Amino acid sequence: MTRVANFNPGPAALPLPVLERAHQELLDFQGTGMSVMEHSHRGKAYEAVHDEAIALLTELAGIPSTHQVLFMQGGASQQFALVPMNFLHGKSADYLHTGSWSKLAMDEAKHFGTPRVVGSTEKDKFMRVPRADELDLDPSAAYAHVTSNNTIEGTQYHYDPDTRGVPLVADMSSDFMWKKPDIGKYALIYAGAQKNLGPSGVVVVVARKDFIESGRKDIPKIFKYTTFAAANSLYNTPPTFAIYLVRNVLSWIKSVGGMPQIQAWNEEKAKILYAAIDGQADLYRAPVEKASRSTMNVVFRLPTEALEEEFVKEATRAGLIGLKGHRSVGGIRASIYNAITVDDVKKLVGFMGEFAKRR
Amino acid sequence: MTRVANFNPGPAALPLPVLERAHQELLDFQGTGMSVMEHSHRGKAYEAVHDEAIALLTELAGIPSTHQVLFMQGGASQQFALVPMNFLHGKSADYLHTGSWSKLAMDEAKHFGTPRVVGSTEKDKFMRVPRADELDLDPSAAYAHVTSNNTIEGTQYHYDPDTRGVPLVADMSSDFMWKKPDIGKYALIYAGAQKNLGPSGVVVVVARKDFIESGRKDIPKIFKYTTFAAANSLYNTPPTFAIYLVRNVLSWIKSVGGMPQIQAWNEEKAKILYAAIDGQADLYRAPVEKASRSTMNVVFRLPTEALEEEFVKEATRAGLIGLKGHRSVGGIRASIYNAITVDDVKKLVGFMGEFAKRR
Repeated sequence: MTRVANFNPGPAALPLPVLERAHQELLDFQGTGMSVMEHSHRGKAYEAVHDEAIALLTELAGIPSTHQVLFMQGGASQQFALVPMNFLHGKSADYLHTGSWSKLAMDEAKHFGTPRVVGSTEKDKFMRVPRADELDLDPSAAYAHVTSNNTIEGTQYHYDPDTRGVPLVADMSSDFMWKKPDIGKYALIYAGAQKNLGPSGVVVVVARKDFIESGRKDIPKIFKYTTFAAANSLYNTPPTFAIYLVRNVLSWIKSVGGMPQIQAWNEEKAKILYAAIDGQADLYRAPVEKASRSTMNVVFRLPTEALEEEFVKEATRAGLIGLKGHRSVGGIRASIYNAITVDDVKKLVGFMGEFAKRR
Repeated sequence: MTRVANFNPGPAALPLPVLERAHQELLDFQGTGMSVMEHSHRGKAYEAVHDEAIALLTELAGIPSTHQVLFMQGGASQQFALVPMNFLHGKSADYLHTGSWSKLAMDEAKHFGTPRVVGSTEKDKFMRVPRADELDLDPSAAYAHVTSNNTIEGTQYHYDPDTRGVPLVADMSSDFMWKKPDIGKYALIYAGAQKNLGPSGVVVVVARKDFIESGRKDIPKIFKYTTFAAANSLYNTPPTFAIYLVRNVLSWIKSVGGMPQIQAWNEEKAKILYAAIDGQADLYRAPVEKASRSTMNVVFRLPTEALEEEFVKEATRAGLIGLKGHRSVGGIRASIYNAITVDDVKKLVGFMGEFAKRR
């Protein structure tokens, strides 16, 4: 079978060259007579991969020396608990509330202190993120937490919140590295790799060193960011194959021109897709406020749920996969992460046109 | 290059047919036009793999309906913290102390209650595990914790500790599924997959349902065993590719004859290797007491560290990889997990003979 256009929300498509590289060396990594996943995490062959992944991310994202890259496990869902466990200290932290994921992050924070709801867009059914002037931040908060892209609702911040000195923590799981991030503005960024950066099973963290040093010392070693920082993420056995694939993705990003090219492609994809929705307003409708539209998860509706079901079914038959909206909100969602090509999006837009004609 | 004999302690060798299966379908999983790692964890293709992995383990290990299989992340090191977080309740638990890993497990438990040292073999430099009659267990302990195989020291329990009703928790990371386990005797078993079962990045847990139900409710969702149990380990995105490989390993075990065959091979490998050590006593010496010798990690010494270094260097040149003992104890260690063939061990034994002759 030919390769499908995979709009899955995560785990998601990987760039074909990344998979082909893994395929080519799966049985024999660099002439070592074994797979990279059979290498010791303390051996030279793997450590070179590990360090290259960190070096590539540092270069591509422009990570300053104040910050450090960590590889952790447990997904963003575990970060929801680790951030307050390390930094809340029974105090209050500001949570910008923009949907299902920020809600889960707040729920876990309640075990360690008080998450204060800030800039909630719940009354707008989360169909936008708050504007900068709506953020009534507490200058004495332990930190402020933002979900930079809301995978389910299809919204995204197009600015970095200004917290005036309060450490800013961001769940960037679904848009980290969609363009070059402004790392210096964040105390801690975490991102499950399975959207823009690799397979599931590894979380990329970029943390300001002095911020993680300020964390609690009286918690288990395995839950401290400083444990991972001190050991270059080799305190215990890391998910080596997942990190190897992240390395391959970063290496691919560099090979195609780095973050400027990735951003240009992402903006082009989003532009084409939103234009197709807006241009066929009798059938398609994007519920998200224009200023908050996500460049990663493009959500749209059809007039009836029956039509939406038909749309997904026919699209699947046409090799356009993963378009069903999240079970909690319904509708259609096309996740157009870094690995999705402009051509994939054009195929989808072509299908949307044909589908519209047939009605 | 031809395939080496890989005696790495973990991440470790995988059965070649497992890697070949992954290689064959890496770019196109079952004609779906994408890799298994690009599939949604909530889609049919992946869920079939996930459920098959659980069904195969249930069948091969003879898991009774009182128990449930969970897939978690963070390695055994995270289980060191999760077990006391869920079950210690500020009380005391008995920790059978047999080396570096039981020590780390106890250290994490101190954050949640009192780990009481039981049956320590520290005065024997951990060169044996305690005998059943040395275990002075507390009948009111929250649980008893055992490290069934000590990867670093090369020791292994050859009996299931009788805790007389106290829930028995076992770190079986380095010997789970070396033979068919007696699951009914354990309240909770955890094992990092990267020894006998797959790549790093996934932990296999087998838990008694009523035991995990007894755990604390006032901790973050992501840290509760019941969260994983209720969601069939799909509460959040699991490490799908690692679980896929675990499925492949279990499927391979079944195809070669199940646990009786695996056990027979493991016993044969250990027998051949220990015989080679004992039979050349002028050069090789196994420091572990015979009754506690591990069938998984065979540790031995040479008369001097210089000779040990020479041994490892020459072995590596001969395609025998990963034989250096753990940095904390030195010496030689051959990890002969399930994926190591009898032939691999014969190659090592042949080399040991030649090395001895040349001295």
